[in-house]
Amino acid sequence: MKIAIAGYGNLGKGVECAVNAAPDMELTALFTRRNPAQLPTATKVPVYPMAEAAAHKQEIDVMILCGGSAKDLPEQTPTLARDFNVIDSFDTHAKIPEHFATVDKICRANNTVSIISVGWDPGLFSINRLLGQAVLPQGKDYTFWGKGVSQGHSDAIRRIPGVQDARQYTIPVESALERVRAGETPELSAREKHLRECFVVAENGADKNRIEQEIKTMPNYFADYDTTVHFISQEELNREHGSIPHGGTVIRSGRTGFDRQTKHVMEFKLTLESNPEFTAQVLVAYARAAARMAKENSFGCKTVLDIPPAYLHPLSAEELRAQLL
Amino acid sequence: MKIAIAGYGNLGKGVECAVNAAPDMELTALFTRRNPAQLPTATKVPVYPMAEAAAHKQEIDVMILCGGSAKDLPEQTPTLARDFNVIDSFDTHAKIPEHFATVDKICRANNTVSIISVGWDPGLFSINRLLGQAVLPQGKDYTFWGKGVSQGHSDAIRRIPGVQDARQYTIPVESALERVRAGETPELSAREKHLRECFVVAENGADKNRIEQEIKTMPNYFADYDTTVHFISQEELNREHGSIPHGGTVIRSGRTGFDRQTKHVMEFKLTLESNPEFTAQVLVAYARAAARMAKENSFGCKTVLDIPPAYLHPLSAEELRAQLL
Repeated sequence: MKIAIAGYGNLGKGVECAVNAAPDMELTALFTRRNPAQLPTATKVPVYPMAEAAAHKQEIDVMILCGGSAKDLPEQTPTLARDFNVIDSFDTHAKIPEHFATVDKICRANNTVSIISVGWDPGLFSINRLLGQAVLPQGKDYTFWGKGVSQGHSDAIRRIPGVQDARQYTIPVESALERVRAGETPELSAREKHLRECFVVAENGADKNRIEQEIKTMPNYFADYDTTVHFISQEELNREHGSIPHGGTVIRSGRTGFDRQTKHVMEFKLTLESNPEFTAQVLVAYARAAARMAKENSFGCKTVLDIPPAYLHPLSAEELRAQLL
Repeated sequence: MKIAIAGYGNLGKGVECAVNAAPDMELTALFTRRNPAQLPTATKVPVYPMAEAAAHKQEIDVMILCGGSAKDLPEQTPTLARDFNVIDSFDTHAKIPEHFATVDKICRANNTVSIISVGWDPGLFSINRLLGQAVLPQGKDYTFWGKGVSQGHSDAIRRIPGVQDARQYTIPVESALERVRAGETPELSAREKHLRECFVVAENGADKNRIEQEIKTMPNYFADYDTTVHFISQEELNREHGSIPHGGTVIRSGRTGFDRQTKHVMEFKLTLESNPEFTAQVLVAYARAAARMAKENSFGCKTVLDIPPAYLHPLSAEELRAQLL
């Protein structure tokens, strides 16, 4: 399986490492909007300008897109899906249906496969929300994130004019988490479940009040939460906020029996020392699925909810039945 | 979706309740090897002799098989798969490949869909083992069960001549579980991870020593574990061991980065007040998938590893993308 990467930030670096370690994959190209000659990659993968991607169509089975959801992916995924099977990690939940419709049309017109919104949320967490509802229809589900750095939210802050760098921590409201784990099924608003804490490096002379307001009022990302913004120096950010841990828990609390007398709890929990490295691993597993679906002419846009689990694993269906079932 | 049940033990009763609660399903028939006229069902579903099942082919979209893995399913699944789309919960891990091959041949010859080995293990736990390996290929996975009653193991004991009734508790070795949760990746044998404790009611005059030996040496089920057998009265069994709780945890502990320096832990945990009621819920969700795959002419035998998650949920793909992803 020949894999290429589009975009070489933290996520792209994680994908480079994950593909390098996969027994059935080869990293054949990396595409960047920066100067290819000056990109210090970890492996010896050839680097090309993003604009020349289509010329390398024959050397690539799946292109893994590693740009941000706010501005990169809404443009790059539709463009690259014309010539490639692509994977993206588009994570603006509210805009997924629109993104899906755009990409699906292009895939069907060009006989390509795209799997969008891959990662752990959206991604593995979505699968667990679905399983919880399908298996325990009488119940409630809860998703708690963190404490951890959200790539998407940090990226969104960095795109505000005047912001030089930023880290956003998502923090679960501990008292709410404890109630759910104890078997209660409270109604909780977004605000009651999580806090958002932002560490921001402003450019020289930037209007910090405006930046803070733009963050706190940003729709989808911050407007529905209690958000704290701290302005710090680049040095302090590098020193104190250099790693990118994350994690979280999806819980389904449900009941069965004619009198709803029997209680069950399903829980899926991730504890991640590096969010981008883990997300990259998920992207690479779904790249394997995209290559297999393309071989079966199963074209169009998909999400993690459409992919049979067996397509993600290097072993054959026979081996999986014997070893894993 | 018209659903039928074959077999009316604890699992069949759970399926009856789950189908009754499903918005998109109707329970149209129940088949039994007992006397249909004397079967006290919870709903008013028509009850027929198992041998007459084929005559009701037109009234049934999916047949959910609720017999045991030791003796019922190896015979019933192939027989019923000739005329019906079927779901079973075959859980003798070592014999799954053979069972799959038998059923697959029949499904392909008769244009039916079977999904075998459905439940939580094999089943939801299998999916999580697969996801863990696919996402974190450098790592180790662990499955801990219990403390809880294993239906399959209790059933296996009850089939030994001279046994009137039995309950088998699977108990995780707490010290082993703690090591894995703490991020260690020890090599653990089956014996080091779980104990098996059996409460057995012997028939009058039965040879208890022989029964105990047959249990402790039973391949696949007990031979590889430290097993304790207690002989008790039916009254004590009913009084002290009447409920059927279970649960367990699948953990994948893995590393990423070029120097394997970054640690991640994935955990899937179930806490179930009734194993058969929960297993029944899983069977019913997969019955939905079987009906959908049959409509798409996707015939043959499948396992949970082959089913796209979206097929399990009553909502459409569009609704799932908007609400769950």
